[in-house]
Amino acid sequence: MIMEPAALDRMFHALSDRSRRGMVDRLGRGPASVMELARPFSMTLPTVMKHLTVLEASGLVHSEKNGRVRTYRLQQEALGHLDRWISERKASWNMSFDRLDHFLAEEEQTP
Amino acid sequence: MIMEPAALDRMFHALSDRSRRGMVDRLGRGPASVMELARPFSMTLPTVMKHLTVLEASGLVHSEKNGRVRTYRLQQEALGHLDRWISERKASWNMSFDRLDHFLAEEEQTP
Repeated sequence: MIMEPAALDRMFHALSDRSRRGMVDRLGRGPASVMELARPFSMTLPTVMKHLTVLEASGLVHSEKNGRVRTYRLQQEALGHLDRWISERKASWNMSFDRLDHFLAEEEQTP
Repeated sequence: MIMEPAALDRMFHALSDRSRRGMVDRLGRGPASVMELARPFSMTLPTVMKHLTVLEASGLVHSEKNGRVRTYRLQQEALGHLDRWISERKASWNMSFDRLDHFLAEEEQTP
């Protein structure tokens, strides 16, 4: 599946904040409520909620409400998309650098 | 080398814009001047410069001025940091999901 540019924009933006990355790391250990996610941060609950809204809009996390408790879960596939974006670039950059090496090696052999 | 949270913030922020990702892709094929980088985009030169400043501040690209021409180059190591950040998370998430699978399998075996 190819990611829409807007979806990648949202995902990179969501990860551009260390508190949000901290929440992603916490969710990597299992689902958590807003209160559990807020605990390690010295932030007001509305600020935590704002970060979680950004994360959910990016597709990196998903939430569900059961009674009065909203539980957040990581969407691992989303990180897979980012991983693919980076891997594709790494592969093509290495190729262009390989081509450059090859070209330089040929240049050297030319008398 | 461990990346400072602020450096990761800047790198994710730099990639949260599709025009900047397009410039990174262009530089993946080799160094380029501001004019070359601006060509595929329907943007004013000051806007292009603003994007390049964000990219350079993030460490993803580096520029050098020779005479009147400023040339931009990709800093491949920077992408390596992002790649490592994602790989570490993928590894630890898979581990916690493996633990969950193991736990569920044990549960099933309990009569």
